[in-house]
Amino acid sequence: MAEHTVTLLPENKKIEVPTGSLLVEAIEAAGLELNQPCGGQGRCGRCAVVVVDGTVRRRSTIRLSAADIEEGYALACQTVVEGDATVRIPLQEQVERRLVTDRVERPVELPFAYQAEFDQTIRVLDLAMEAPDLGDNVDDQTRLLRSLLDASTPDMLRRLGRSGASREVPPPVLPLAILRQMGESLRAGSWKAQAVVETDTWNSPRGWWRVVDVRPGPIRPFGLAIDIGTTTVTTYLVDLKTGEAIDRAAEYNGQISRGEDVISRIIYAGKVGGLAELGQLVRGTINTLIDRMCTRRKVSPEEIYRATVVGNTTMIHLFLGIPPASIRLAPYIPVVNRPQPVEAGQIGLNVNPMASVDCLPGVASYVGADITAGVVSSGMCDSQELTLFIDVGTNGEMVLGTKDWMVSCACSAGPAFEGAGVASGMRATLGAIEEVWVNSRSLEPTYRVMGAGQPRGLCGSALLSLLAELFITGVIDRGGKFVQDGRTNRCREGEHGAEYVVVWAKDTGMGRDIVLTQTDVDNLMRAKGAIYAGFSVLARSVGLKLGDVQKVLIGGSFGKYLNVEKAVQIGLLPDLPWERFNFLGNTAVQGAYMALLSRDSRARVSEMAGKMTYLELSADNTFYDAFTAALFLPHTDISLFPSVSPVWEELAALRK
Amino acid sequence: MAEHTVTLLPENKKIEVPTGSLLVEAIEAAGLELNQPCGGQGRCGRCAVVVVDGTVRRRSTIRLSAADIEEGYALACQTVVEGDATVRIPLQEQVERRLVTDRVERPVELPFAYQAEFDQTIRVLDLAMEAPDLGDNVDDQTRLLRSLLDASTPDMLRRLGRSGASREVPPPVLPLAILRQMGESLRAGSWKAQAVVETDTWNSPRGWWRVVDVRPGPIRPFGLAIDIGTTTVTTYLVDLKTGEAIDRAAEYNGQISRGEDVISRIIYAGKVGGLAELGQLVRGTINTLIDRMCTRRKVSPEEIYRATVVGNTTMIHLFLGIPPASIRLAPYIPVVNRPQPVEAGQIGLNVNPMASVDCLPGVASYVGADITAGVVSSGMCDSQELTLFIDVGTNGEMVLGTKDWMVSCACSAGPAFEGAGVASGMRATLGAIEEVWVNSRSLEPTYRVMGAGQPRGLCGSALLSLLAELFITGVIDRGGKFVQDGRTNRCREGEHGAEYVVVWAKDTGMGRDIVLTQTDVDNLMRAKGAIYAGFSVLARSVGLKLGDVQKVLIGGSFGKYLNVEKAVQIGLLPDLPWERFNFLGNTAVQGAYMALLSRDSRARVSEMAGKMTYLELSADNTFYDAFTAALFLPHTDISLFPSVSPVWEELAALRK
Repeated sequence: MAEHTVTLLPENKKIEVPTGSLLVEAIEAAGLELNQPCGGQGRCGRCAVVVVDGTVRRRSTIRLSAADIEEGYALACQTVVEGDATVRIPLQEQVERRLVTDRVERPVELPFAYQAEFDQTIRVLDLAMEAPDLGDNVDDQTRLLRSLLDASTPDMLRRLGRSGASREVPPPVLPLAILRQMGESLRAGSWKAQAVVETDTWNSPRGWWRVVDVRPGPIRPFGLAIDIGTTTVTTYLVDLKTGEAIDRAAEYNGQISRGEDVISRIIYAGKVGGLAELGQLVRGTINTLIDRMCTRRKVSPEEIYRATVVGNTTMIHLFLGIPPASIRLAPYIPVVNRPQPVEAGQIGLNVNPMASVDCLPGVASYVGADITAGVVSSGMCDSQELTLFIDVGTNGEMVLGTKDWMVSCACSAGPAFEGAGVASGMRATLGAIEEVWVNSRSLEPTYRVMGAGQPRGLCGSALLSLLAELFITGVIDRGGKFVQDGRTNRCREGEHGAEYVVVWAKDTGMGRDIVLTQTDVDNLMRAKGAIYAGFSVLARSVGLKLGDVQKVLIGGSFGKYLNVEKAVQIGLLPDLPWERFNFLGNTAVQGAYMALLSRDSRARVSEMAGKMTYLELSADNTFYDAFTAALFLPHTDISLFPSVSPVWEELAALRK
Repeated sequence: MAEHTVTLLPENKKIEVPTGSLLVEAIEAAGLELNQPCGGQGRCGRCAVVVVDGTVRRRSTIRLSAADIEEGYALACQTVVEGDATVRIPLQEQVERRLVTDRVERPVELPFAYQAEFDQTIRVLDLAMEAPDLGDNVDDQTRLLRSLLDASTPDMLRRLGRSGASREVPPPVLPLAILRQMGESLRAGSWKAQAVVETDTWNSPRGWWRVVDVRPGPIRPFGLAIDIGTTTVTTYLVDLKTGEAIDRAAEYNGQISRGEDVISRIIYAGKVGGLAELGQLVRGTINTLIDRMCTRRKVSPEEIYRATVVGNTTMIHLFLGIPPASIRLAPYIPVVNRPQPVEAGQIGLNVNPMASVDCLPGVASYVGADITAGVVSSGMCDSQELTLFIDVGTNGEMVLGTKDWMVSCACSAGPAFEGAGVASGMRATLGAIEEVWVNSRSLEPTYRVMGAGQPRGLCGSALLSLLAELFITGVIDRGGKFVQDGRTNRCREGEHGAEYVVVWAKDTGMGRDIVLTQTDVDNLMRAKGAIYAGFSVLARSVGLKLGDVQKVLIGGSFGKYLNVEKAVQIGLLPDLPWERFNFLGNTAVQGAYMALLSRDSRARVSEMAGKMTYLELSADNTFYDAFTAALFLPHTDISLFPSVSPVWEELAALRK
C-alpha cells in the first residue's frame, strides 16, 4: 500500500501513513493528542484541523460550515489521507470558540409577519423643522416635540392619547444626555434630523414615551436578544427594520471561573467585591459578543437601541448587580422577578447608552425568564394541547399546561447527570464513556469513549444509559438494588457495597476499575426520581395524569444528546409515544428575540409569568410521596410505563 | 482729653487715641486700611472687627446678629473707644463670606398653611411587611409594592388612579439603585422600613410615581431651594415635614472668575472644556453651601430628597451641562426653557443621588425661571391690580400684567449702571463714590465715598444720582447734552467733548480728575432709555399706559440701594406715587422655596411660564421708537412725569 507523508504544523512533525488512513490516526501516530469527545463519529466537531495543502478526502463535514471548508477546515476523524498533506492543528481553545460561536441554532421562525411600524416599541421618526426665527422663537425642546408629534403615525398617537389627537399626547421623557447634545445636533443637520423614540414599556402608564436619540441620521436601528446561561451566553444582533437576526454569537459566561453552578455563584457574590466582579464578568462577555457581531456586520454599537435579556433568576440578579443571597436561603425569595427596563449606560453595556435594556419577567427564584421566554417561543403559550415543557440541567425546570393555564416547578436534580458526585463520574470530556450497552446474556458491556484514548470515567449520558441497561438486563432490580445472583463476575461486593465493573483497571487510563456502585445508583435514582416527581406533582396538582400529556417540549442543552428510549426506561421521562417529544434547542434566546421584535410577544412573556402558578416543591407535601414512588425503575406503578414493562418482562422471563 | 491705647491684631500695632474716637479712626491712624463701602454709616457691615477685650461702646449694630455680638464683633465705624482695647481685624474675605452667608433675606411668608400630606410631592411612608415564607413567596419587589399601596393615603391613591382603589394604581418607577440595596435593607430592618416616594412631577402622565429611597428609617425628609444668580448663589435648606426653611446660605457663584456676565460665560462655555468647567464650578458652589448648612444643622445630605432650582436661562443651561451658545446668537433660542427633573446623581449634586432636581420653567433666553418664580413669590400672579415686576442687573427683565395675563421682555441695559464702560466708572467697592448731590446754585458737588479713603471713581448708584442732579440743576439739558453757559468751571471741554468734574485730581486717590463725560451721559441715557422703552413697549403692546400701573414690584439686588426719586427724575422708573413701589429682595429663591413646598405653587410657576407672552424687543418694531423717545430727561413726553416737571421747571425758572 502506498505511504504518504503528513506534515503536522505548528510542530512541523512528519509521519508516514498508508493510503486511506484517517487524519486522526496520523496525528495519534505522531504522538500528538486531539480532542475527540464524540469518539470519532464526526458528531462533535472538536477534532477540526486545517488542511494547508495536499490530497485528502472529507467523508463527512456535518459540523463544518461552507465558510469553514473554504478556510480549509476538516474533521480529522472523518478525513482520509490520499496523498502527501500538510495539516495545521489549531489550539484547542480556538476550535472550542469557533464551535460555540458558530454552532448556535438558527433563530426561530417568527410566528408573525414582522411589521416594524406596528410591532416595534422603537421607532425612527424623520423630523423636518423650520429653522427658528424671531417670529417663531420657541426653545429647541418645544420645536423638537412639535416635530415629533408631526412625524408620528396616527397609530402611535392613538397609543399615547385617547383619540390620537396630538394635543392629548403628553410630552415624552427627554433625557438630559439628549438635551446636552441636541442643540448642536439639530443645527448641524440644518433642522433635519432623525429621532429614535420608545413608545412603551411593560409598566409605563398610558401616555408615556421617551426620546432615545436625536441626530442628523440616517439612523439604522438595531436590537439585541441576549440569553445569559449559567455556562454559555448567546446573543442575536437584530435589524429592527426587517426583524432579521443578522448575526448570532455565543461565548462561555465569564463567570464560570468563579463557580460552575448557580449556588456557587451566589456564594461568590456574597464575598467582598464578589457581586461587582460577577456583574463585570458577564457584562464583559456580552460586550465581547456585541463587539464581535458589530465588527462583522459593520454596525455601530451606538445604533443598538434596545436589548431584551433572559436568563435564570440568579443570572439576571448578577447581570443587574442585585445581590442574589436570598435566592439560596429558605424561603428562596428573589429581590425581583420583573425588573423594570434600565438604561444601558447605567449598567455599562456597550450599546447606545440611552438604549433600554429589558430583562424579561421570571416567575420565582428557580423558574426564571429563560423559562417564561421558552414557553412563548416554543409555542406552548398558544397551544390547546396539554404540554410539558422541560429544561433540565443541574436544576430541572418544568412547566405543564395549555395556553389557558400553567403550573411550573423546579426540582434540584443534583449534579449526578453531569457526572459529579458519582464514584467513576466525570464531565463529558476526553476519556469519558458517553454511552454503554450491556449484553443481555453475557452481561458484558460495550461502550463508546469520547476521544481516542482509554476510558477514564462515566459522563452523564453514560450513567443514564448504563442505569437503563442494568435494569433491563436484570443486573439491578426495580428497586435499584444489585441482584447478586452470580451471573457475572462484573457484579461484585466492593469496598462500599455492591458494584458493577464497566471497565477493568488494565483497560482504563488510570489503573483503576471504572465502576457503578450501589451509592451511585441510589444517587441517580434520586435525581431521576426528583425530576419525574416534579412532573407528577405538576400533573396531580391540576388533577391530570402524565399520560394525558400530548406534547413534550425539550429546551436547552439537555436534549442535545439525550436518548429518549433509555430516559423513558429508567423513568426519567414519562412513557409517551416518541412523536410527542420535540427537541427545540435554545428556546430562551428565541423568546428574547421574539420579545425584542414584538410588543405582543413581550406582553405574552409577561402574561405567562403572571399566569404560571409556581409550586415550591419543598413546600408541597405531595412531592415526597411522588418522589418516593419514583424511586423505582421505572416507577412503583409500572402501569405508568407500558412500553417498558414488556421489554423488561420478556428479558426477565428469559432469565428464569 | 484722656488717651487710650488700642492694640490692633494680628499685627499687634498700638496706637493712642482720645476718648470718643471711633475704632475706624484708630485703625486708620495706625496706617491700616479697612473696607467701608457705605462710607462709615453702619449700613454695609464690611468694617466688622472683633473686640477681643477692653472698653468700647457700640453705637449701632444694625448689621450684626446677636451671635455676632456674642462673638465680639463690632462695626468699626459705629464703635466708640472709651478705654484701652484690643481689637482683631479679620481677613476681609472672612467678613465678606460672613456677610454674604448670613445676610440673606428671611424667607417669604408662605401664602398657604403648609400641609406636607397635601402639598408635598415627596412622601415618607411607614412600611410594615410580613416576612416572606413558603406560603407567601412573592419577590421583594412585589412585597414592597403591596406595602407601599397599603401605606398610601386615600388622597395619594386618588392622585394615582381613577377612584383611589389600589388595584388601579400602576406600579411606581423603582430605580435600579434602590433595587440593588433593597433586599438587604428590608431584611436588616426585619421587614419594617420607611420609603420615600415622589408622587408626581410637572410632566408625568397620570399614574406615574417613583420610589426615591427605602431604608429602615427613621427618615427625616429635607429639600433645597436654590437660586443660581450670575453673581451669587443662594440656598435654603427646608424641613419637608414642617415646611420651615431651617437654614440659608449664600456664596459667590464660582463661575465669576470665568466672566462677570452671562454673555462672557456663554463665550467661555464655547471653549474646549469650558462648558464642563462652568458646570463643575457652579455645582461646586452649591455643594459647598449644602455642606455648610448640613453641618450646621446636623442633617445628612442623603436626607435631602428634592431640590428646586431657579436662575436665568443661561445659568440653568450651565448648571445642567447644556451648551448655551444659541442663547447669544440671533434669533436667541435656548435649548430648553422647561427642563424635565433630573436625578441628583446624574449631575453630581451632593444630596441623595435619587433626589429629583427640578429646574423651574423659564419663558425665553432672557426671561428665565428666576423671573417666573419671582412672579409667583411676589404675589403678582394672584393680583388683580395692574402690576409691573422688574429685576434689573446687566439685563433688565420685566413683566407687566395681572393674574389673568402677562407680557414680559428683557432689554440689554448694558453695564453702565454697574459702573463699567464709563470714563470714571468703577464697581461698588472701596473708594467708589456712591451718591452725589449737586448744589443748585453753586453747582458744586457733595458726595459719599465707600470706605475711608479718597474717592477713586463713580459706581452705578452715583452715576444714577449724578445724572439726576445734573439734569435737575440744568447742567445738562433734557436731551442729555451739557449746557455750556459758564455757570461753573466744573463744566468744561475735555479731551473727548464736554464733561463735568466731580472731584479734582488733588482730592482723588489717583491724581486724575473724576469726571462724567458727554459719552458717559449718552451711555447712561441709552441704558435708562432701554429700560423705560421696555416698560413702554410692554404697556403699549397691551394698549395700556404706564400710569395705569398700580403696583411696581422690584426684585433682586437692583432695589437694594436704589433711590426711587432720582430713578424717576431721570426717567428710569415710571413716575408713579411712591407707595406703589415695593422692594421685595430675592424673589427668585423665594419662588423656588414655594415650589419646593407646594405642588400648587409649582403648578403656578409652570402656568405663569406658559401664560407670559415674551416680546423679543429686537424683533419689535415699536421698541426703537419707544427707545428714541426715552432718550430725553426724563422723556420726550414730559407729561408722563408729572412729579418731575415742577421741580425741573422751578429750578429752570430760577436760573433765568
